[in-house]
Amino acid sequence: MKKEYYFDNAATTKVEERVAKTIQKYFTEVYGNASSLHFKGQEAKRALEEARSIIAKAVNAKQNEIVFTGSGTEANNFALKGLFFSNYPEKNHIITTKIEHDCILNTCKWLEKQGAEITYLDVDEKGFIDLKELEKSITPKTFLVSVIHGNNEIGTIQDIEKIGKLCRKKGVLFHTDACQSFTKTNIDVKKMNIDLMTLNAHKIHGPKGVGALYIRSGIKITPLLHGGGHEFKLRSSTENIPGIVGFAKVVQIASKKDIKKMKKLRDYIIERILSEIENVKLNGAEGDSRLCNNINLCFHNIEGEAIGSFLNSKKIFISTGSACSSHSLEPSHVLLALGLSPLEANSSIRITISKYTTKEDADYLIKELKKTVTYLRKISPF
Amino acid sequence: MKKEYYFDNAATTKVEERVAKTIQKYFTEVYGNASSLHFKGQEAKRALEEARSIIAKAVNAKQNEIVFTGSGTEANNFALKGLFFSNYPEKNHIITTKIEHDCILNTCKWLEKQGAEITYLDVDEKGFIDLKELEKSITPKTFLVSVIHGNNEIGTIQDIEKIGKLCRKKGVLFHTDACQSFTKTNIDVKKMNIDLMTLNAHKIHGPKGVGALYIRSGIKITPLLHGGGHEFKLRSSTENIPGIVGFAKVVQIASKKDIKKMKKLRDYIIERILSEIENVKLNGAEGDSRLCNNINLCFHNIEGEAIGSFLNSKKIFISTGSACSSHSLEPSHVLLALGLSPLEANSSIRITISKYTTKEDADYLIKELKKTVTYLRKISPF
Repeated sequence: MKKEYYFDNAATTKVEERVAKTIQKYFTEVYGNASSLHFKGQEAKRALEEARSIIAKAVNAKQNEIVFTGSGTEANNFALKGLFFSNYPEKNHIITTKIEHDCILNTCKWLEKQGAEITYLDVDEKGFIDLKELEKSITPKTFLVSVIHGNNEIGTIQDIEKIGKLCRKKGVLFHTDACQSFTKTNIDVKKMNIDLMTLNAHKIHGPKGVGALYIRSGIKITPLLHGGGHEFKLRSSTENIPGIVGFAKVVQIASKKDIKKMKKLRDYIIERILSEIENVKLNGAEGDSRLCNNINLCFHNIEGEAIGSFLNSKKIFISTGSACSSHSLEPSHVLLALGLSPLEANSSIRITISKYTTKEDADYLIKELKKTVTYLRKISPF
Repeated sequence: MKKEYYFDNAATTKVEERVAKTIQKYFTEVYGNASSLHFKGQEAKRALEEARSIIAKAVNAKQNEIVFTGSGTEANNFALKGLFFSNYPEKNHIITTKIEHDCILNTCKWLEKQGAEITYLDVDEKGFIDLKELEKSITPKTFLVSVIHGNNEIGTIQDIEKIGKLCRKKGVLFHTDACQSFTKTNIDVKKMNIDLMTLNAHKIHGPKGVGALYIRSGIKITPLLHGGGHEFKLRSSTENIPGIVGFAKVVQIASKKDIKKMKKLRDYIIERILSEIENVKLNGAEGDSRLCNNINLCFHNIEGEAIGSFLNSKKIFISTGSACSSHSLEPSHVLLALGLSPLEANSSIRITISKYTTKEDADYLIKELKKTVTYLRKISPF
């Protein structure tokens, strides 16, 4: 039997062994500052540009359209604040959704204090926005639409191609947070008319502390980090070469086979739980409109926290809150946006698998989950 | 003979082997998200808090006064912008110096566009600010004084204890960028009345992509990265545990013996060059007022770039520009502030040693430098 059963891959992932090994070399051998003119710097610079090229190709971007950041959160902050400071006061309106990650929502809240106006779009019971509502919300003051691609909690994948097409037609910029969907579903920035896109490494078996913002050529954006003028003068800071190389390596390793494998296992888990446990509901979308690694379930009449805590004692690790934000006992804003009651939201858990998750892991999870739910319902006052 | 002679340790450093090894474990074993409530998250959280405690102790701060960032540049941007947005419009005046790192100066330039007023203090020919000039510059609108501790180009160490005392007396906040001085000279935030201080890892044999901002308890500051509320709600982003643990580890390893050793070697190199090569001048301060690893020399009548290029061909790596910023052929703003002419500034090179640098390395550098200078002066039109 395994020591640990990690089902929280939307929170963060184990770094791929090959990637961890690759990074070593950039700690102790290719350790130069990519801005240095000497050999040691230029060697680092080459590694940087090679990594940039790999990530650009993965989303059909040009090499100089990828700007490395320190995280997905930084890239999201950069996109929204950077465009705000480039467009304000001429334009001040941003359209986003009620199911964004906290780093988009809290950035929006701060921007409101600086003079921005924000529209937070509703979603339907599966988590999809309404394109007509989006279109109606665009005003002459709108400079940006920001919609998360694959949702971190419920796994719903928006139709960003249609959103991109609409934004392009209307002449507003389109940003998407693709931290959860990158390498887990196909992304083509040209075909999908994406103007800016947030990526990160640690959700896909890469290292923590590195992300990227795709910025389509020609877009004017104010830096979030001012300084030495790194990253095409858009993001200053000594480039984190080990992290960036690790990020590129993991993108290179990612395969469509793994997506297929995860989808199959995801559906196996969903089907077994829905059929073997009573009074359970799947939150979010289904099939190809759902992230291949995401399962979000509402177990009526019991606390998600209690399930998590029981499973934790069996070394099974799942998530209850969004698990990307710091501890909070508030019901999830994403689940509430789907129309769940606060009680239902707090009765929900998130199970996120990875390419390393096996059927045996899944069977153990299901077995223990059944026991836990049965026990908790027995002692529940409801 | 060694393959490479790295004398650019102010640009970046090789990661200490023990640190690189330690980090591995946090890539592939302790890989949880420190915000997750389960065991895997709490294990990461413990590593985070232990690292925080180590860094806090190293500068005599409280544990909750250390906020991890993605770099020194981010910490400097956070300090200045964060305080600006907390103080504006009531107060809008910042006092800094003409010899700050680009990430302070370019942040100030951006803040000027947002309504800040900035005073850039002059320095004397060794690089020291004048405390009386500082005192005179403080107005009722001043909320912050930001002065670099050990200068990255010329190694001059400001008397931050006196600056801190003055700022405290005058009721303005004092921030110092200590990226170059941390672990290379004693820092005590309480004794020195420091309110905010920027630190980073990659200048001291730690990993790239991690820094910290010390923020004295009770100071109100607006986050630069909004999101999930990590780091006491001051800096959102999934915590980069491998980087943070590596940072703490390298701080733990740092020893006063190494400082002493570097000082001795620094002075040996300076003395030999000044006595064996004609028409050379040391830029910056001397003795204990100079960073233990910094040497900055002006070789009259030859281009620093040419020296750097010749040495590079011998696998000796030194720096000509600030080497923290991206390539620029502009004469260094720091050297100009000392009173050097643009020609003198462009005739200067920076040699920065580390605890790994040996006397043999130094002897090889000096030998090749002498040859290079002799040759370049022979072919120089001046």
